[in-house]
Amino acid sequence: MFAMRDFVRSARDLGLAVAAASLVVAAAQAQTDPLPSWNDTRPKAAIVAFVEKVTKEGSVDFVPELERVAVFDNDGTLWVEHPLYTQLVFALDRVKAEAASHPEWKDKQPFKAVLEGDMKTLLESGEKGLMELLMTTHAGMTTTEFQKIVSAWTATARDARFKRPYTELVYQPMLELLAYLRANGFKTFIVSGGGIEFMRPWSEQVYGVPPEQVVGSSIKTQFEIKDGAPTLFRLPQVNFVDDKAGKPVGINEHIGRRPIAAFGNSDGDLEMLQWTTLGAGTAPRFGLIVHHTDAEREYAYDRNTSVGHLDKALDAASVNQWTVVDMKTDWKVIFPFDLK
Amino acid sequence: MFAMRDFVRSARDLGLAVAAASLVVAAAQAQTDPLPSWNDTRPKAAIVAFVEKVTKEGSVDFVPELERVAVFDNDGTLWVEHPLYTQLVFALDRVKAEAASHPEWKDKQPFKAVLEGDMKTLLESGEKGLMELLMTTHAGMTTTEFQKIVSAWTATARDARFKRPYTELVYQPMLELLAYLRANGFKTFIVSGGGIEFMRPWSEQVYGVPPEQVVGSSIKTQFEIKDGAPTLFRLPQVNFVDDKAGKPVGINEHIGRRPIAAFGNSDGDLEMLQWTTLGAGTAPRFGLIVHHTDAEREYAYDRNTSVGHLDKALDAASVNQWTVVDMKTDWKVIFPFDLK
Repeated sequence: MFAMRDFVRSARDLGLAVAAASLVVAAAQAQTDPLPSWNDTRPKAAIVAFVEKVTKEGSVDFVPELERVAVFDNDGTLWVEHPLYTQLVFALDRVKAEAASHPEWKDKQPFKAVLEGDMKTLLESGEKGLMELLMTTHAGMTTTEFQKIVSAWTATARDARFKRPYTELVYQPMLELLAYLRANGFKTFIVSGGGIEFMRPWSEQVYGVPPEQVVGSSIKTQFEIKDGAPTLFRLPQVNFVDDKAGKPVGINEHIGRRPIAAFGNSDGDLEMLQWTTLGAGTAPRFGLIVHHTDAEREYAYDRNTSVGHLDKALDAASVNQWTVVDMKTDWKVIFPFDLK
Repeated sequence: MFAMRDFVRSARDLGLAVAAASLVVAAAQAQTDPLPSWNDTRPKAAIVAFVEKVTKEGSVDFVPELERVAVFDNDGTLWVEHPLYTQLVFALDRVKAEAASHPEWKDKQPFKAVLEGDMKTLLESGEKGLMELLMTTHAGMTTTEFQKIVSAWTATARDARFKRPYTELVYQPMLELLAYLRANGFKTFIVSGGGIEFMRPWSEQVYGVPPEQVVGSSIKTQFEIKDGAPTLFRLPQVNFVDDKAGKPVGINEHIGRRPIAAFGNSDGDLEMLQWTTLGAGTAPRFGLIVHHTDAEREYAYDRNTSVGHLDKALDAASVNQWTVVDMKTDWKVIFPFDLK
């Protein structure tokens, strides 16, 4: 029989031990830098100051855990987006993989351009051509089948420059930032213009972000029961574009509360940064832009590119006091494999 | 200076205390029924058997925590939906509250019917009339404004029969079930035909379900910056209907993985129950239907009603071995206030 006396004693022991363990943890934290791949420049100081401010109980800036929502763009913010968005590389590879079953593509644009490696003609096909490419390669199968296709591709495809799987071309400093925020009670979400179903198969393993915390663009799906098994069939129709002014809409739809911190790298993230940081009065908010300034270790681009175009958002950063990361000077290493 | 020896000793103390505390918790659990408002009939036994099965490490049926997703319908499953869906009562109240600013409504259907309390004519206005009613009362303001309207209404509105706020007309046995699942590592989601923004202002307080775990129907919103403050403006256009075959679509879009347990009460939940339980082979899955059989304590209805119509899903329950709760015999109490 379980006695209350034992409970009290156990609880007291536990209390003492927990107090001791808290000291252990505090001491360990004081000695361990949570952001070791960040140089001791202004962005790191700004991040740490913000996190300490909102987590300090009793402080006027304290934010309860449930409201510590942080949103991250993916392409160019968490992983490499140059020279092409990875999902576009995936689409091109899918066309090549499926070409044998589609002999008509040899004479039909934009597929002809893809098969001939003629990027100029492909880009000239514009939004219409790219949309046809996306719909052909992303629709016409069940969600389960698409998941398998994505997983197989991410396991085998290699980036031309770095000769690595794309899921290794993620930024080590940002992985540390994700972990640091979560260790401080934040819930981290991805809010990307990329396809929601393209990111979910690997977001948990690569970023520690589970599928229910991924927001992205999507196509319509339809519920069907086939041979007794329920399926969701992917239709060639756009459901939602999670980019620019769509990002606050996607955030509201999926998360249902305003984030207190947002991380992006391009004009596609401008409205997400505005939605997160503006009009909140004196409440603590944090906005950060990753500025690609390191052609040697990664890429250098901003106003001069279509992929990851950063222009208005860079101007807005100085007006709104968003932190701008200069990759070249603020990051010790770029990729996890640089650590080895 | 912190020494490794102290760390080891503290860790050992902590380990011993945690082991002791685990025994305390286990003993307390053995003595405390997590579902006290459930009678010891088949549904309770089925729920407990399922939870014990999927949480038992090393068992062939073990499910990792991250995959323990449980989805709950709201109207008729977690709270009362008779004689009218609560959100419809809200819409009718909004028309009455706004009537002074809309003198034209006196002669315009379906508003005329609402103002005259003529439910027969209102229902005859059909889907078109109801949609006009919903769009007029749910759109034309920012998300923040709508949130305030909903919160003010739920704080003051009272159900005609029970003379209680609608947020008190929730089922005590289901509150216990939500807490029991969460205590066993489940993530609980609401998946409702009701409006996502109508539920979020109170779902956390009433059900312990945070806004990011609420899936529901929605209207389109548009991002605008007004006087320097970013807003989302609610447009009178349907974005998504989270009912029937829409529920698996909404689950996939928001959660991105198949639930392992689903709880509903009407034909609107049929596809959600199918998506959750069918085609999973021998993997453990749980489906449950709340059958309203208690006219005295709540309401009795199934095939004979339009609100919460339960017909196909009841037939499917016996075919698919879903658990059917007979409210009259399986629940000791219906509402939290019955406990007092």
